Amino acid sequence: MADLRDAGAESADKEMPLPAMDLNSGNITETVISFCSQGSDPRMKFIFQRLITHIHKFALETRLSTEEWMAGLDWLEACGQICTPNRKELITVSDIFGLSTLVDEIQHPKPRGATLGTILGPFHSTEAEEKANGDILSHDPKGEPLFVVCQVRDTQGNPVAGAQVHVWEADSSGEYDLEKPDLDGPDGRGILRTNEMGEFYFAAIVPVPYPILCDGPVGQLLAALGRHPYRPAHMHFMFEKEGFDKLITALYLRGSEYQDSDAVFGVKSSLVVDIQDMDKETALKYNQPSVKKLLKYDFTLASDAEAETLRDSYSTAPR
Amino acid sequence: MADLRDAGAESADKEMPLPAMDLNSGNITETVISFCSQGSDPRMKFIFQRLITHIHKFALETRLSTEEWMAGLDWLEACGQICTPNRKELITVSDIFGLSTLVDEIQHPKPRGATLGTILGPFHSTEAEEKANGDILSHDPKGEPLFVVCQVRDTQGNPVAGAQVHVWEADSSGEYDLEKPDLDGPDGRGILRTNEMGEFYFAAIVPVPYPILCDGPVGQLLAALGRHPYRPAHMHFMFEKEGFDKLITALYLRGSEYQDSDAVFGVKSSLVVDIQDMDKETALKYNQPSVKKLLKYDFTLASDAEAETLRDSYSTAPR
Repeated sequence: MADLRDAGAESADKEMPLPAMDLNSGNITETVISFCSQGSDPRMKFIFQRLITHIHKFALETRLSTEEWMAGLDWLEACGQICTPNRKELITVSDIFGLSTLVDEIQHPKPRGATLGTILGPFHSTEAEEKANGDILSHDPKGEPLFVVCQVRDTQGNPVAGAQVHVWEADSSGEYDLEKPDLDGPDGRGILRTNEMGEFYFAAIVPVPYPILCDGPVGQLLAALGRHPYRPAHMHFMFEKEGFDKLITALYLRGSEYQDSDAVFGVKSSLVVDIQDMDKETALKYNQPSVKKLLKYDFTLASDAEAETLRDSYSTAPR
Repeated sequence: MADLRDAGAESADKEMPLPAMDLNSGNITETVISFCSQGSDPRMKFIFQRLITHIHKFALETRLSTEEWMAGLDWLEACGQICTPNRKELITVSDIFGLSTLVDEIQHPKPRGATLGTILGPFHSTEAEEKANGDILSHDPKGEPLFVVCQVRDTQGNPVAGAQVHVWEADSSGEYDLEKPDLDGPDGRGILRTNEMGEFYFAAIVPVPYPILCDGPVGQLLAALGRHPYRPAHMHFMFEKEGFDKLITALYLRGSEYQDSDAVFGVKSSLVVDIQDMDKETALKYNQPSVKKLLKYDFTLASDAEAETLRDSYSTAPR
């Protein structure tokens, strides 16, 4: 009986498509939506209902011309064509339109006190090496050495031990390892774990501003829009531990050029940090006698439950 | 002085971008729009203002998850990657969402009496050969021979001589020449010209229903949405002549399977035609003693002025 009821519920949920004949701006949206509502997944139906509605409204509001339509499709084709496993042009498309920032906020809402998130960007890699605390993550000899000391806590202030921490940054010329196919293995990145005190620390280089990849369709579009392609100096961090909401974030250097005009809309004032001169005590504690620059920052992770509660409180969309 | 005034007007039109810091769902849309409003082309600014607004609304309404966002970007990447000069997956994407039908209506509005337009589809080719009236356009030996006789008129009923007519159709297995790289040159297509009576005529084959290309991301999406990929039997036509609005259309065979569920939303009842048995008079007139099937249809072209007036009357968007 349960099976029959389930089948009945599913078929009631499944719409019959409307007849697709003589479609025009007055009836095409509901017809295409009905075509996309033949599956049994309510979440998928809802997403395509909203997607089709917005695509059609966009075309109607702009009275989109055939040339503009074709230019848009050609541009999307070029974005896909230029992609490789190490070049994710579509992520950059999402970044320059602010979509990535928005999705991070939607998916990872933060309770009071938790460290804010920011965009993942196209240069995260799962092929990073595991590193021990104190290891060198960036070997670029032209980079200005920087020691980074951080602590990770929960929203009650307790240290979070055993969290996996991905760190990645560009080299002194503003390029990531993924952009340099001749490089022998990953560099400027690593996967660390917090110790019992919730601490992690590593040697890196002082980040510099750099342009996002501009030799493809995204670069052409930014130029056409009169936009610069630069990001202020920053270092990426990603935190994962069971029971905690994944935190994708970055730290931005105070006073860096482009700090208030980041091409991909990632900067948050609570993530802007000062680089300090290394003090004797820290240099001794972490055995870094020659490093002159120090970055200290404490991260606060939201729990899964905290994030889930906030997600639910914002959302009326079917899941 | 005129130069100075122009420069002033342009710089007044050019917005300063808002500071991009601490962006969230409350302020990100206006900020990204301000970033995309730094150029001097008002049409481009308007298009991106609407595009960004709809992208952000879509993400917020659906509370788009990171996994869904990434799945969407990966799908778009795959659509671009599968493209070749002869395979235009992004056009098919536009087709299956009804966007192509909508853009044709927006760009080519039709005055009373003019033949309606429909989608171009991904299989038009500029490499078609010029043909003379009476020539054979489709050489597939398995196809059922069909003779096609048409007249082209303006909305006052006057014959339109010297119009260029592109015709293209699939073969008897539902495949276009562009899908068959081994084929020696184009087939199933040609470029004709109307004679002094506005007539054009040619030998072809009776079209058959076929699925749109399903071995890529579009096919995967249709399957996930529970949608079939078929188009009813049809033949494509495109008309161009100076002074007339370009007409992109197709004729659909009455009674063909999928006639009211075309996967790309192209069917209009005024474009549905009956295939007749060839009559003796026509066979004699066009010297087609062995062809058994006849398709007759008259097309009516809107003038540029008629289409322009209608476009303007619908549009409040800056151009």
